[in-house]
Amino acid sequence: MVYVALISYTPDPERTIAAAARVSTSSVGATKLMEELTPQAVDRLLTRLIASGHLSPFEHASFTFAIEGLSRVTSHQLVRHRMASYTQQSQRYVSLKELDYITPATISAKPELEARYHDMVRAAHRLYLEMLDAGIPAEDARYVLPQATETRLVMTMNAHELIHVCSLRLCLRAQWEIVELFERIKAEVEKVAPRLGAELKPKCYRLGYCDEAESCGIFPTATEVTRERR
Amino acid sequence: MVYVALISYTPDPERTIAAAARVSTSSVGATKLMEELTPQAVDRLLTRLIASGHLSPFEHASFTFAIEGLSRVTSHQLVRHRMASYTQQSQRYVSLKELDYITPATISAKPELEARYHDMVRAAHRLYLEMLDAGIPAEDARYVLPQATETRLVMTMNAHELIHVCSLRLCLRAQWEIVELFERIKAEVEKVAPRLGAELKPKCYRLGYCDEAESCGIFPTATEVTRERR
Amino acid sequence: MVYVALISYTPDPERTIAAAARVSTSSVGATKLMEELTPQAVDRLLTRLIASGHLSPFEHASFTFAIEGLSRVTSHQLVRHRMASYTQQSQRYVSLKELDYITPATISAKPELEARYHDMVRAAHRLYLEMLDAGIPAEDARYVLPQATETRLVMTMNAHELIHVCSLRLCLRAQWEIVELFERIKAEVEKVAPRLGAELKPKCYRLGYCDEAESCGIFPTATEVTRERR
Amino acid sequence: MVYVALISYTPDPERTIAAAARVSTSSVGATKLMEELTPQAVDRLLTRLIASGHLSPFEHASFTFAIEGLSRVTSHQLVRHRMASYTQQSQRYVSLKELDYITPATISAKPELEARYHDMVRAAHRLYLEMLDAGIPAEDARYVLPQATETRLVMTMNAHELIHVCSLRLCLRAQWEIVELFERIKAEVEKVAPRLGAELKPKCYRLGYCDEAESCGIFPTATEVTRERR
Repeated sequence: MVYVALISYTPDPERTIAAAARVSTSSVGATKLMEELTPQAVDRLLTRLIASGHLSPFEHASFTFAIEGLSRVTSHQLVRHRMASYTQQSQRYVSLKELDYITPATISAKPELEARYHDMVRAAHRLYLEMLDAGIPAEDARYVLPQATETRLVMTMNAHELIHVCSLRLCLRAQWEIVELFERIKAEVEKVAPRLGAELKPKCYRLGYCDEAESCGIFPTATEVTRERR
Repeated sequence: MVYVALISYTPDPERTIAAAARVSTSSVGATKLMEELTPQAVDRLLTRLIASGHLSPFEHASFTFAIEGLSRVTSHQLVRHRMASYTQQSQRYVSLKELDYITPATISAKPELEARYHDMVRAAHRLYLEMLDAGIPAEDARYVLPQATETRLVMTMNAHELIHVCSLRLCLRAQWEIVELFERIKAEVEKVAPRLGAELKPKCYRLGYCDEAESCGIFPTATEVTRERR
Repeated sequence: MVYVALISYTPDPERTIAAAARVSTSSVGATKLMEELTPQAVDRLLTRLIASGHLSPFEHASFTFAIEGLSRVTSHQLVRHRMASYTQQSQRYVSLKELDYITPATISAKPELEARYHDMVRAAHRLYLEMLDAGIPAEDARYVLPQATETRLVMTMNAHELIHVCSLRLCLRAQWEIVELFERIKAEVEKVAPRLGAELKPKCYRLGYCDEAESCGIFPTATEVTRERR
Repeated sequence: MVYVALISYTPDPERTIAAAARVSTSSVGATKLMEELTPQAVDRLLTRLIASGHLSPFEHASFTFAIEGLSRVTSHQLVRHRMASYTQQSQRYVSLKELDYITPATISAKPELEARYHDMVRAAHRLYLEMLDAGIPAEDARYVLPQATETRLVMTMNAHELIHVCSLRLCLRAQWEIVELFERIKAEVEKVAPRLGAELKPKCYRLGYCDEAESCGIFPTATEVTRERR
């Protein structure tokens, strides 16, 4: 089960974003803006930036998460988002004495299959341990481990990219484990930056329609909207 | 076994790099430089850029590779290089009727273990197929598949990043499967851009010393060099 | 006056994009797809990728442009697009014996101001040359040159980023010189990749509405659309 | 004269980097590492990461600077570093009633030229103001302003990129104004992260030799070192 902790972040992230944004249209410097912007002014400015799609100032606030209990299936997807920094537990240097692994809910729902799934994963892990004992290096023994194997990593992502990635990965058509991951990430961000946290949402909530081939039902697709407007 | 084919690349890549580089210090435009630079001038210029570490003009030439027969162990490492573009076969949308997988040489070297390795991988694949038959979606059934499972992908990387990544991944201390991958990539590049291909080499060949904690023996470490110079 | 020439690009760019895209959902490799995809299949696939916003396969095709006659006002804006490679004429290493510079149309429209503009720019250039003669290095003398001074550069941008940047910079509210630049870039791309070229257009053409605070009039703003749908 | 203020940064940046780095080779999670790492352990780990060139964990700490009094000559160079976030004062939206500008020391050293330089810059600014009065938009009037014109911006850069950029821009062969900028940036970082600050230094200090064509004299060039070792 995925676990997310926010271990570090740019202090006062919303004010930092707002002060940076104001620099572009102001004759006052950022140091002064950091002191003088009221919470109301920060909020108004963030709302305006979002409405007009001017998201680059959101890059000035970064969030660093400790992520644990994520399958290698999903960490492989996660690191495809290139505008972020990752440090991941290495299966070359760390031997996995205990195997922590993920079981998808569709498998848990079928007790007979689930039992065989657990048996298979444990058998693979036993062979992994025996290979280690026989002198096979961990970096090679791990080839037998299932993709369900849990990993841990530290990820730093700025607020611009968080908005972008959540727009894709909070979509109900995304893979369930990565949806869960970003729901927890959103929850962590909301605690310290509620205005920004509220902006972490599927793209359809921003667009007002679904741009996938098929909608989950919450919003109509672009084609349906166009038809309706005629 | 990893297979690499160069399916597309910037035509005349070395001349393109040289023409771009000359623009920075010349009063002539790139169109004219593309026509007028002799092969000798191109070669001399590339040599000078490399010697002085001015590698950014190498970004103007890109190479697109079809990669097959790579384990998911290694594709997960590969995509950590963020200055490149990847399109990878999806285990959500493609069901793997046949299982192609990698067997590390250290396991093949021990026949008794190797037999058990093959049995385990095949048993995991059989359970995967049964789960598909029982209505488990491919995106969930794949959790039981071993990390040895082969994947295929298309990767585009520019020459600057190829030089950088090869400097790390052709190091003999890198993981063997990714070393093999980049040896094949180097071989493909050498066919169409020999001067550039020659530059795809471990960082120690460029530095003249090894900057890892322990050397493989080809070059002394930085500490050893410093000691020697005293 | 800005001049753009396409000096190099990924051959058969649309087929390369389509073959890469198909790898993600296919059990056939990219080498085979490159051979077998018909022009019709390429076209259909590109249309579907665009409609669903799955633009990452467009990164596998790159375009390298020689750009000349661009003011330093605009080159400073241009290089803010970070997902591209630039090699620009250096004012540290190249002395500008002749001054080529840009005159905005709003200034040309007022003959008396225009004359004073030309006089001022030429006077600044004369002082620049005298400073060079007096032994001031070019890198310092250039401080007196106007921002109107022309520069030349080579830019390589992949098709994904071209789509993104054109969505912003072909907007009629963008700065006129950068609009001109990207109109010429679009014209160059259209010659060799018409399907892709057609996709280089302001974001409102894709969204069906304007997401700026004020519309130029072609499309209603998001607020106006929402009001209309009620 | 360039002014730099550190307006925001990842709290406890060195501990954050160290905790992230340890995750890759540890069976303990980052949350626990953040609590348990002693200052000595942090220091030792950072030293080891730097010695072996494993710099990616340094990306987990970011620094946000308010930068003022920088010429447009130099801001154009600065934003070429793509692994950073910038928000810059717009000359489209901000009219420059007062002109603040930079005078290079080589010009100040020649009083007669210096006087003409000041006259020219002020004349350009007067024409700029007159054009504004005559209804020319600021975005066009600015074409006449000299490149010496000061700008202000907010820049966020992570510690990995700071190390990289300082290795290039603290080199005495870099342009003097950008050297000054990064000296001030280094001074700001040193106040809050002394171990990291000490690592912000020209590349020759790390390599032990100069890899430019000509050395400033502090370190011998690579060619000279090779000759010496024979």
